[in-house]
Amino acid sequence: MQAITVKPPGAGITFQNVDYKNKGIKIKILENGICGTDREIVKGQLNSAAVPAGFNYLILGHEAIGIVMEDGNTFKKGDIVMPVNRRGCGKCLNCLVGRPDFCETGNFVEAGIKGMHGFMREYIYDDEKYLVRVPADIKNMAILAQPLADLEKSMDEIINIQKRMIWKCSDNTFHCLHALVIGTGTIGILFSLLLKTYGFDVTIANRRDAHEKELKIFNMTDLKYYNSANGYNFDNNSFDLIIEASGSSADVISQTLVFLKNNGIFGLFGFIRSGELGINTHMLQDFVYKSIAMVGLINGQKPHFEMAMDHLMQWKYMYPGIDKLLITDEIQISDREKITTALSEKSKDEIKTKILWD
Amino acid sequence: MQAITVKPPGAGITFQNVDYKNKGIKIKILENGICGTDREIVKGQLNSAAVPAGFNYLILGHEAIGIVMEDGNTFKKGDIVMPVNRRGCGKCLNCLVGRPDFCETGNFVEAGIKGMHGFMREYIYDDEKYLVRVPADIKNMAILAQPLADLEKSMDEIINIQKRMIWKCSDNTFHCLHALVIGTGTIGILFSLLLKTYGFDVTIANRRDAHEKELKIFNMTDLKYYNSANGYNFDNNSFDLIIEASGSSADVISQTLVFLKNNGIFGLFGFIRSGELGINTHMLQDFVYKSIAMVGLINGQKPHFEMAMDHLMQWKYMYPGIDKLLITDEIQISDREKITTALSEKSKDEIKTKILWD
Amino acid sequence: MQAITVKPPGAGITFQNVDYKNKGIKIKILENGICGTDREIVKGQLNSAAVPAGFNYLILGHEAIGIVMEDGNTFKKGDIVMPVNRRGCGKCLNCLVGRPDFCETGNFVEAGIKGMHGFMREYIYDDEKYLVRVPADIKNMAILAQPLADLEKSMDEIINIQKRMIWKCSDNTFHCLHALVIGTGTIGILFSLLLKTYGFDVTIANRRDAHEKELKIFNMTDLKYYNSANGYNFDNNSFDLIIEASGSSADVISQTLVFLKNNGIFGLFGFIRSGELGINTHMLQDFVYKSIAMVGLINGQKPHFEMAMDHLMQWKYMYPGIDKLLITDEIQISDREKITTALSEKSKDEIKTKILWD
Amino acid sequence: MQAITVKPPGAGITFQNVDYKNKGIKIKILENGICGTDREIVKGQLNSAAVPAGFNYLILGHEAIGIVMEDGNTFKKGDIVMPVNRRGCGKCLNCLVGRPDFCETGNFVEAGIKGMHGFMREYIYDDEKYLVRVPADIKNMAILAQPLADLEKSMDEIINIQKRMIWKCSDNTFHCLHALVIGTGTIGILFSLLLKTYGFDVTIANRRDAHEKELKIFNMTDLKYYNSANGYNFDNNSFDLIIEASGSSADVISQTLVFLKNNGIFGLFGFIRSGELGINTHMLQDFVYKSIAMVGLINGQKPHFEMAMDHLMQWKYMYPGIDKLLITDEIQISDREKITTALSEKSKDEIKTKILWD
Repeated sequence: MQAITVKPPGAGITFQNVDYKNKGIKIKILENGICGTDREIVKGQLNSAAVPAGFNYLILGHEAIGIVMEDGNTFKKGDIVMPVNRRGCGKCLNCLVGRPDFCETGNFVEAGIKGMHGFMREYIYDDEKYLVRVPADIKNMAILAQPLADLEKSMDEIINIQKRMIWKCSDNTFHCLHALVIGTGTIGILFSLLLKTYGFDVTIANRRDAHEKELKIFNMTDLKYYNSANGYNFDNNSFDLIIEASGSSADVISQTLVFLKNNGIFGLFGFIRSGELGINTHMLQDFVYKSIAMVGLINGQKPHFEMAMDHLMQWKYMYPGIDKLLITDEIQISDREKITTALSEKSKDEIKTKILWD
Repeated sequence: MQAITVKPPGAGITFQNVDYKNKGIKIKILENGICGTDREIVKGQLNSAAVPAGFNYLILGHEAIGIVMEDGNTFKKGDIVMPVNRRGCGKCLNCLVGRPDFCETGNFVEAGIKGMHGFMREYIYDDEKYLVRVPADIKNMAILAQPLADLEKSMDEIINIQKRMIWKCSDNTFHCLHALVIGTGTIGILFSLLLKTYGFDVTIANRRDAHEKELKIFNMTDLKYYNSANGYNFDNNSFDLIIEASGSSADVISQTLVFLKNNGIFGLFGFIRSGELGINTHMLQDFVYKSIAMVGLINGQKPHFEMAMDHLMQWKYMYPGIDKLLITDEIQISDREKITTALSEKSKDEIKTKILWD
Repeated sequence: MQAITVKPPGAGITFQNVDYKNKGIKIKILENGICGTDREIVKGQLNSAAVPAGFNYLILGHEAIGIVMEDGNTFKKGDIVMPVNRRGCGKCLNCLVGRPDFCETGNFVEAGIKGMHGFMREYIYDDEKYLVRVPADIKNMAILAQPLADLEKSMDEIINIQKRMIWKCSDNTFHCLHALVIGTGTIGILFSLLLKTYGFDVTIANRRDAHEKELKIFNMTDLKYYNSANGYNFDNNSFDLIIEASGSSADVISQTLVFLKNNGIFGLFGFIRSGELGINTHMLQDFVYKSIAMVGLINGQKPHFEMAMDHLMQWKYMYPGIDKLLITDEIQISDREKITTALSEKSKDEIKTKILWD
Repeated sequence: MQAITVKPPGAGITFQNVDYKNKGIKIKILENGICGTDREIVKGQLNSAAVPAGFNYLILGHEAIGIVMEDGNTFKKGDIVMPVNRRGCGKCLNCLVGRPDFCETGNFVEAGIKGMHGFMREYIYDDEKYLVRVPADIKNMAILAQPLADLEKSMDEIINIQKRMIWKCSDNTFHCLHALVIGTGTIGILFSLLLKTYGFDVTIANRRDAHEKELKIFNMTDLKYYNSANGYNFDNNSFDLIIEASGSSADVISQTLVFLKNNGIFGLFGFIRSGELGINTHMLQDFVYKSIAMVGLINGQKPHFEMAMDHLMQWKYMYPGIDKLLITDEIQISDREKITTALSEKSKDEIKTKILWD
């Protein structure tokens, strides 16, 4: 069958026929999503990328929607599903309880990234345990559930961490809490929508004017946009939560950390590409006096995929037309040139690009 | 009555007679502890130091043991007590539930530090709600309960944060977890003892050989000592928890952060005096991939004072002689010269210096 | 303005003109829901029913949807809202943090039930803090958000209680957990839908064949129906969770308790009207050996209302037509005879009956 | 070697020589404790008692203190240790994370009770993972750590369950909370001491006057004694927590349940021998309206044994002489007649009886 493969740490992709079949029920792939991690692998920049044992290539792709081809125990022929992308090490306690996002050994595998073939191929075979049901109604935007699952997990973790104290308003909601999300890519926008759904007042920032499509989304969903081209200039104690989702330079962290309130939390989600985070003496003292927490956020598991499907369903009807605004491009699998381009660089205005299989 | 006062931001202390009496039962002060924060105030270096409203001086002292002089509702004449040092803003939710360590407004007061007279005086008058019972048996080391309360709270917070995943061994204890404590002052040693009590394997570090008295404590309590004069050199993934308790330069943070395991946590307790924390691109990426958390740790409340008393009681008998090793100096209130010196600089080998009232 | 009033502990209702206006923004009532508690008050059977201080009558109604008549701080003229029904005592810690469902003093008030006028009137005036936004898209079924909020809170509480151990499957979801819901009224059906959404395998039971409309719902939402006319006959260890939502006789509790698994939880939601719960010696021993928990479940707060709106939105599209199946009757406010009947007895096949204002 | 064995479901004990050796380091048994479960097994009344696979007898005993006979990895020759008594099923998630107290399969084994030889024998061999260090200082009362571990776990569970709301005072302690403990056996007294240590106001009850020895303990530890010979007569809303630790008739539960406050919790610890718990309609309604929780409490694991050692250490010095009051009898292993009697019935005034090996 046809597949898109890579040979990390080498750059570039190959369209090749592979004869690879593992255990599980057969699923025909309908769509793949393309994300920044794919591009890092394709550029040969992701150090952790690794071929599966016994192979000299890796099938790319960790975002996929497929259709079940045969009856299983839980799923039936014709069901639409999304496979979970990370699989546990089988040894550490966190993996044993289904949380390889907190794998202690580091020996987890990740489809299309590290030690496990990915989903950019005609068919996959998978244990039903790793499949997430896709409601038919959101099929056209369900590919977003994979990145959104990472954010569902992140919010879950943030809320768990903040249980160190009362981090709610006097009406027990989050309405009085303010969040800043840095970055307007897929992650920045989805994280902002999720925070809005939780009840936060959300400001989303980028170092330029917002694009027209972005503005439509921000207006529709009541997000505040902040142009940080001239830096960040807020009142002290402006934010209860800041999310770094730009994956740009480390500068944005130190520039915004100072605006956190007492008990605030800074979530690092983006893959910082350059720069050094510098926290000076005074800010370090404040970090302590204000009981600030900073935490690295990664990788949702099955419950988070399911929460993501629930939220996508809700958003589709709460914000009519948002599905079409978020899916910015669709490429047929036959258009190899366009796929090659899409896997090497992000297009202007891109939020999510999908590859469509026949 | 006699009191030791300061006039922040001015430096220096004054022994003066004050005629200050607030509501509550009368308590005769028996002892005060001296800590680094006192010295910062005395040197005029603590920005947050502030006199109470309506006063042009501040009575110093936030560590005290006293004897109750009259029967109250909960306490009786002759009871030995320690007053809690921070008092809430009366408005925010965290203060309302007794947790001014997480005060949202910043309008809490703190005895001997910010907006509330301290305990270095012959008598205090206090609401019984803020008094903690001192078991007679540990009277000679109970002054340590105030700093230890801060650490009880810190451990409580760390364990709460780490509930984001499973942070225990397969026998449900902490025995397989490794902690590094940086600094061998009162905080460093008490934090190490507390971690040991929780079951951690503990390494305590300083940039020199351990003093003889320190070595006695480390041997008695099964702590490993690490001399970091030539930097920190451990295997990768050596520690589940690192505590900065040196309050020295920010360098120690970036030097040790790299040794944290997956899901590890870095606790900032010390008042960093100089330097900048620099976290480079690679380490920032690891911060995310390893799901690391960093958190500022401060200020125990009443339940933590009570836990501190329980632990001191336990340690006194588990480690015979430890009380005398931890209390390194006792100064009579009449010895003004020695007190003046003690309040301006830490003596060599000091762990805890006490002022004794008649 | 027109209102429906009661005089507890007296029975019966009155349609009367009232001249009552309290602080807050003006809201025109669009719909009221009728629930079992209303009927108990109307029959004079609810002991806790009480008129507000200074009144000799109580305006009935705790389920309402209204339209905002003037711009406020958070809401604007034309917004559709639902008011939260319970308001705190203003003194205990749980009420101070917005959780009067756990009021310690018992001095909370509850609209249309206890000490606070209800919502069955032309206009209410309310603090915006107590208003919940209703997405326009679900206006026709949003009245269900009030009872559903109680269940959102219940699930939240159940999941919190079960954090005493691991109560999840090896894929970190709830898919391997089995729930039994007793009762097919509004509560029974909504609780079953909620559990299904959480991932549970759900059996819903009643002492008769399911009605046609119920069967449609159960098929559409993949719930299993169990006819308990001849008692409950399951394998041992069949359920991880049992919810009593029938509000019938206490017998159902002892009859089903025996089917709980190790670590199982029994949630008491319904207002048991008769009978005595008898747990024999053997079952009591099992209660201990199996670490069973039993808990009384009541009353959602603002965050639960918001979660309820989210779930209704999701269900409307996941289960097309469910809104019309759940709202079984609508009565015009002018039809006083029918309202009088509806407030005194539940009609056959009723799930939720609404009163429509002009 | 010599051992005390039973043949469940048969009654009676045998002193016999056994030639049983399993893997692990060698430990010489110094003492065994006798508890109610032992007596139930000896009387043939414990249904769950079972011989290990391949044996036609069971070595009795689940409370033991021993001395390590050879150097291991964690323990050294001469160390005093207590073995943990329950061992997991090896399959379910709770057992995999070291919590067989919440075993889902029920296939755990328990030393001296179910499927695993107990500790009433000259030597045991055990995996160091299951050994708990005994501080030399409390050797004479450390046998109490096994029953106390069950209570440490119980308190941990109770506090976890009560995190469903705020269950603390405005100073963040438990000082304003009231507990009733029913029963003055080992469990009743140790649970009361533990609650006192947590800060609760504690009333301990039995259906008779307190014995002299009990009174000494209650006075020393500031427990209130309640003689329930004429039933329980308290004000409404008297208790936040009630613990059934009498293991007598089910009546005591329904008689005391009515005195729970809003959000109160009823812990079932005792092995109820007779009667039926009857909760009438009115009390069931209150159970719901007051958000009451009832929970079965069993079986501490390794962290709880360690907490138990810590508390025994603390109590020994906080309440001088309590060790001698709690250990009410010591029997030499050679005194077979007295052991036989002690294993068949509880003696008057007994708190804890120990068997001493040579």
